[in-house]
Amino acid sequence: MKAPTDRTRLRRLHEKAAYDRDSIDAILDAMPLAHVGYVMQGAPVVIPTLQWREGDRIYWHGSAASRSLKAGKGVQVCVTVTLTDAMVLARSAFEHSVNSRSVMVFGQAEWVTSAAAKAAHLQTMVETVFPGRWDQLRPMTETEITATAILSLPLTEASAKISAAPPGGTDPDEDKPWPVWAGLLPISLAMGPPIPAPDLPPGTALPAHAAQYRFGQKPQ
Amino acid sequence: MKAPTDRTRLRRLHEKAAYDRDSIDAILDAMPLAHVGYVMQGAPVVIPTLQWREGDRIYWHGSAASRSLKAGKGVQVCVTVTLTDAMVLARSAFEHSVNSRSVMVFGQAEWVTSAAAKAAHLQTMVETVFPGRWDQLRPMTETEITATAILSLPLTEASAKISAAPPGGTDPDEDKPWPVWAGLLPISLAMGPPIPAPDLPPGTALPAHAAQYRFGQKPQ
Repeated sequence: MKAPTDRTRLRRLHEKAAYDRDSIDAILDAMPLAHVGYVMQGAPVVIPTLQWREGDRIYWHGSAASRSLKAGKGVQVCVTVTLTDAMVLARSAFEHSVNSRSVMVFGQAEWVTSAAAKAAHLQTMVETVFPGRWDQLRPMTETEITATAILSLPLTEASAKISAAPPGGTDPDEDKPWPVWAGLLPISLAMGPPIPAPDLPPGTALPAHAAQYRFGQKPQ
Repeated sequence: MKAPTDRTRLRRLHEKAAYDRDSIDAILDAMPLAHVGYVMQGAPVVIPTLQWREGDRIYWHGSAASRSLKAGKGVQVCVTVTLTDAMVLARSAFEHSVNSRSVMVFGQAEWVTSAAAKAAHLQTMVETVFPGRWDQLRPMTETEITATAILSLPLTEASAKISAAPPGGTDPDEDKPWPVWAGLLPISLAMGPPIPAPDLPPGTALPAHAAQYRFGQKPQ
């Protein structure tokens, strides 16, 4: 039987790190949910939020946690976005794993300060995370723009990690005759039937943008 | 029109923090995916991994990042687990949000050191994350146990945050006549058809534990 270090090498064949922007952008664009790590008084704090990408940067709403950090200065963060694609059921406990795609972005996040820039980014957020909806919404007010904090981070220090074990898994050859079912159990994000607000004006139909909405993309 | 501070208060009616273990455990047990935050050389690092709960503690595999930290000592972490339940489509951009449930656990993570304890926790991990499977697997070897690093964290400093806007959303009354569809778009995790390994021994049937597997629970 191979030693685990050899097996770890075997598994690594199906794991790759990617530093090209196409790989990174594809993951960021497929999953709005991000986990943003800050350091507060020396301790890590990880906050879930929605991110959206505009060209070479990602953006998110500043949270109460980030607001308590030095306002106006850069804030050191790590933003991680993860998609789970499948559970990998192997013949041994050791080789069980998850096929996934993730991106980590490191750097100094910056506050968006001008009201005009904030308004433009908020519109892009809605057009990215809630596509097709912007033109139908009650327009934003200046008070709302003022009340919203936005952080942004360049994609200069970003990397992707993609785990994609095949259905045959990463079991060494000597484990393959073991009499247990092995394979992949694909995971995807699904949308349930839309639930309309009880107080919609009469005759308000379900628009295509809501009927066809998807949170996150299907697995590759 | 109400000022955003009033509206923020309105939205908060549908957001609650919870510190009771039932609320915290329900979220941890419903979602194996966790994002673990460490501080490395003063900077935050957020790593996706699978967590499992055993009574008053959560456990996860130590990553390369955590291994580079002081081995043998406690490691300050923040473990965040997030479930996204629905997109909240409102009449204004400002009131758009996500219904979600998340838990943050802070504290000093500790390494599980004894081989016997590691073996027991790995069995519990498989029984928790891959239920029904343990008895059919090729047994673990001592080399595999040695090669596996496990961290654990008590649930003493844990809190849950639950956002649960109703279908009517959080729009103030004066926005409700706006002629746009509003409501909830429910999100859930779905499993696709199992993909068997191409080299299964002949006659290996799909077991119930794989056919009925679910990653994460359905929205509340």
